[in-house]
Amino acid sequence: MNKKALAILMRARMRPNHLNNFALSPISNELNQILSNSHGNRSTENGEHHAMEHGKEKLNHQRSFEVVRESMHSVISMNKTEVGDSVLNEFLEGYCGLSFQNRRKLLLTLAKEYDLNRAQVRELIKQYLGLQPPGSEAQSGGVEDEGFLSTFYRIERNLRHSLKPVYETLFERLNTHPEGLKFLTIIRADILSILTEGNIASLRALDSYLKEKLTTWLSPAALELHQITWDDPASLLEKIVFYEAVHPISNLIDLKRRLGVGRRCFGYFHSAIPREPLIFIEVALLKNIAETIQEVLWDNPPIAESEATCALFYSISSTQPGLAGINLGKFLIKRVITLVKIDMPHISDIPSTGFLTHSLRSVHWVFATLSPIPGFMQWLLSKLASQSKLAKAEDISCSSADRSRLTFYENILEPEEERALIDSSGDLASGKSGMEIMLNLLTPTTHEWTNSDKLLSALKPPLMRLCARYLLQEKKRGKALDSVANFHLQNGAMVQRINWMADQSEKGLNQSAGIMVNYVYRPENIEEYAQSYFSKGHIHSSYDVKRYIQPALENESKDSL
Amino acid sequence: MNKKALAILMRARMRPNHLNNFALSPISNELNQILSNSHGNRSTENGEHHAMEHGKEKLNHQRSFEVVRESMHSVISMNKTEVGDSVLNEFLEGYCGLSFQNRRKLLLTLAKEYDLNRAQVRELIKQYLGLQPPGSEAQSGGVEDEGFLSTFYRIERNLRHSLKPVYETLFERLNTHPEGLKFLTIIRADILSILTEGNIASLRALDSYLKEKLTTWLSPAALELHQITWDDPASLLEKIVFYEAVHPISNLIDLKRRLGVGRRCFGYFHSAIPREPLIFIEVALLKNIAETIQEVLWDNPPIAESEATCALFYSISSTQPGLAGINLGKFLIKRVITLVKIDMPHISDIPSTGFLTHSLRSVHWVFATLSPIPGFMQWLLSKLASQSKLAKAEDISCSSADRSRLTFYENILEPEEERALIDSSGDLASGKSGMEIMLNLLTPTTHEWTNSDKLLSALKPPLMRLCARYLLQEKKRGKALDSVANFHLQNGAMVQRINWMADQSEKGLNQSAGIMVNYVYRPENIEEYAQSYFSKGHIHSSYDVKRYIQPALENESKDSL
Repeated sequence: MNKKALAILMRARMRPNHLNNFALSPISNELNQILSNSHGNRSTENGEHHAMEHGKEKLNHQRSFEVVRESMHSVISMNKTEVGDSVLNEFLEGYCGLSFQNRRKLLLTLAKEYDLNRAQVRELIKQYLGLQPPGSEAQSGGVEDEGFLSTFYRIERNLRHSLKPVYETLFERLNTHPEGLKFLTIIRADILSILTEGNIASLRALDSYLKEKLTTWLSPAALELHQITWDDPASLLEKIVFYEAVHPISNLIDLKRRLGVGRRCFGYFHSAIPREPLIFIEVALLKNIAETIQEVLWDNPPIAESEATCALFYSISSTQPGLAGINLGKFLIKRVITLVKIDMPHISDIPSTGFLTHSLRSVHWVFATLSPIPGFMQWLLSKLASQSKLAKAEDISCSSADRSRLTFYENILEPEEERALIDSSGDLASGKSGMEIMLNLLTPTTHEWTNSDKLLSALKPPLMRLCARYLLQEKKRGKALDSVANFHLQNGAMVQRINWMADQSEKGLNQSAGIMVNYVYRPENIEEYAQSYFSKGHIHSSYDVKRYIQPALENESKDSL
Repeated sequence: MNKKALAILMRARMRPNHLNNFALSPISNELNQILSNSHGNRSTENGEHHAMEHGKEKLNHQRSFEVVRESMHSVISMNKTEVGDSVLNEFLEGYCGLSFQNRRKLLLTLAKEYDLNRAQVRELIKQYLGLQPPGSEAQSGGVEDEGFLSTFYRIERNLRHSLKPVYETLFERLNTHPEGLKFLTIIRADILSILTEGNIASLRALDSYLKEKLTTWLSPAALELHQITWDDPASLLEKIVFYEAVHPISNLIDLKRRLGVGRRCFGYFHSAIPREPLIFIEVALLKNIAETIQEVLWDNPPIAESEATCALFYSISSTQPGLAGINLGKFLIKRVITLVKIDMPHISDIPSTGFLTHSLRSVHWVFATLSPIPGFMQWLLSKLASQSKLAKAEDISCSSADRSRLTFYENILEPEEERALIDSSGDLASGKSGMEIMLNLLTPTTHEWTNSDKLLSALKPPLMRLCARYLLQEKKRGKALDSVANFHLQNGAMVQRINWMADQSEKGLNQSAGIMVNYVYRPENIEEYAQSYFSKGHIHSSYDVKRYIQPALENESKDSL
């Protein structure tokens, strides 16, 4: 590309506010979206705004609500052949024009008034219970009568069908419409957004049903893996820029580098959601597993691809908030591993044998990530705050009988870590505990501690150790507390290494004090690791990472009840 | 392409016996496949043959059956994370290696031993019946408790899930496998093939469940419409040749013409069944609605596309016997109509107003078919045979009291038609009735009647009239008896014209005495026509076609009881 053309392109706004007329897609981290219900959906404001422009009175709102409700009813109740694209279009457009409050009202109507015909269910249950199931004692005497069996299966099927909510018809019919699947993800994003305001059982049931349907429609076999390159249409590249959630793309040169030599970008596409990936992954081909994101994105020039032995997944972003909870990333990573192997035949793919080596200079193909630890600082700061409070309470009431509180108290710092912190912060910290000092240093979003060598060297040991503890030991319902950790562990990865000052961006410092983690996928162990994590919550990790918490484990067994 | 290259290509066998290692896809007419269960699946012999090659003893058969059964059990019973591609692959390959008898045994096992846990269903029904449904009287007094509702919805969902057969797990898991969807269509083709041998209620229930799943996975929105051209890979074009079922492609020049100027070929593809269309349609851009297939395929040179005002659908073929009963053609035709309109903007798209005109020289865009009438001769010959027999019986027993038989007797020929037939066949026909003569003339597959002008002119009037009657009046369960007619009518077409000597091929003469029919799709009437056909069995037709049977209608009302 010549300089002039590039200069023109550079003027383009890199992050347009909205890309399609639904104007609903917020930018946010894939993993946060995939693994938990997304908060604060932008659709709220946009939808509101949109409606405010068009109908300025409450009456108009009411009228348009009734019209959309009517068209929704038509889509559901018309017979099969009557439901043409025009009826579906009318509903789609009507819905998208509604304010968020009216969407909410409509979805609640759908959840409550279009669920089951329970009188019919009860009638069919009565019929069903009146029949002897096949193979039961009453039948086992002779050959079973095919006529009787047909009746039995028919009634069983009728009962099964009667237990499907009426709104399934709406979902199924929308799914046949060219824009239907995209629209269903918008509806689901709205539902999730409503549910964050408070639980509504009927809507929760609808959401779980819709999620099941979306999961089966978005089977990985129905998705197409496409390598995104600099030759792709600008309209597609624009979306990569828009949706990249982990390491924002700052300008076109940055984008071009991510699609150039030594780099790969793969997206999963579905034919019913054309021209935008549902999820995409960015890969760097390197000699070794990178320790910092700076070296991947900016500092190191790309190496010759023939020299690469490591495929580093450094970013994975999903684009549809309405697909939260549907794990497409797992399949994407597996397919990308397969593809890279085919693509780079010069790399021998000898599985490593025996116990995990802590040498990172493996001569074999390595598939690793360089991942954020989005929940670390949040966990650490709240731990520091609550423990500091408990410590104070202990000081005051140490003579009292209130000893029950002490069972929750834990000095999360090692004695030498505490000493180093007190020493490094000098007079300012007089009389304060190590945890208080740490809390005070880490809380300000100015991150001044990163400018002082003394503070850096005092903070590094406890931060790295506590980060290892957070990743390997802090759990919720038997699964890793950190959403990205949980994502990779359930996909069958192991925790390989944690890296100091690996992401010095504002976001990196806020999320994890700049620490990043390498997860490693060993193709030969993926299924085994996923399985033991799933069934026993076992987190595989390298000796390097385990070592951080080995002393802490010993202390814990001494100190805790 | 130069002459040498073409000459080399010409040597290629146009209809390879099998295209993939499953070796299961028989060639057959799309409509027969889509609309009725396909008979005589080739897989039977191929599967048998395959197994005979590999394991020569019965013991081996038994052993391999047990191995596949075991791997099927693994796929179903393993927990989610354990089911990797290797387990699925093992089952896929194992199944494809089984003999047809062993496939049959396996599918019966699946249908009978992996359906429902009916003890669990009964337990959940008990729990469910113990709860007051939301909105019932007991609850209407106050605000409904969200906690109670959550419990209710949870138990309702559990009941719904317990009513899903266990084999759904197998289908869902196969669907996530890259080759799974293709494999499921193979399983379904086997099931249909087994069911033609005799009804088995449990297998019928499994088939209906699998068909439901396939229908939702193959939503038209998930299919990609691709225009197939001479620039496509030979491996794809080979499949078009292989699967073309209506008008076989005789050589490469024939194929090239069908993809060249004034022609279009569109296929529906699914990403999980790559490199072969599920269904494809061939279109000719013409000035007028063609009357004969000869002029479309061979006789007339293509016109300049800018002069075309008619898009003629002259062939539609589906490729997967396992998708029988899933109407993809309907969506394909609709999308192709839309595409052709966009593609040919010079044509004004003014909807015709008022009553259907019988002038075919419309200046507007016309979407029509030139279709076979696959069931006409079969219906006519059996009608002629049974009526001739009844006529004889009447002669013998006219004096007896056996009058009930007479109510079924109908001379399907008009008096002048009968006279003309007797005259034309001379001495050979002495003493025979018109229907007997007609039966004798039409039965031999040598079709000698087509060589005699005298016979042609005697046969044309009754054949055309009876063909119109067959298309417009002969029904089965309220739907057109002819499968192709039923297909287009349910899609919203009308019967526009029947054409004498329109397909003089062996197949055309066998199926319909060479008669073909034009159905017309009027975009503005498609939904209305489909609807009235669906609900009232109403068949829309032009005055031209109706005219053939108007006298017959009058006679019928006089003669019949």
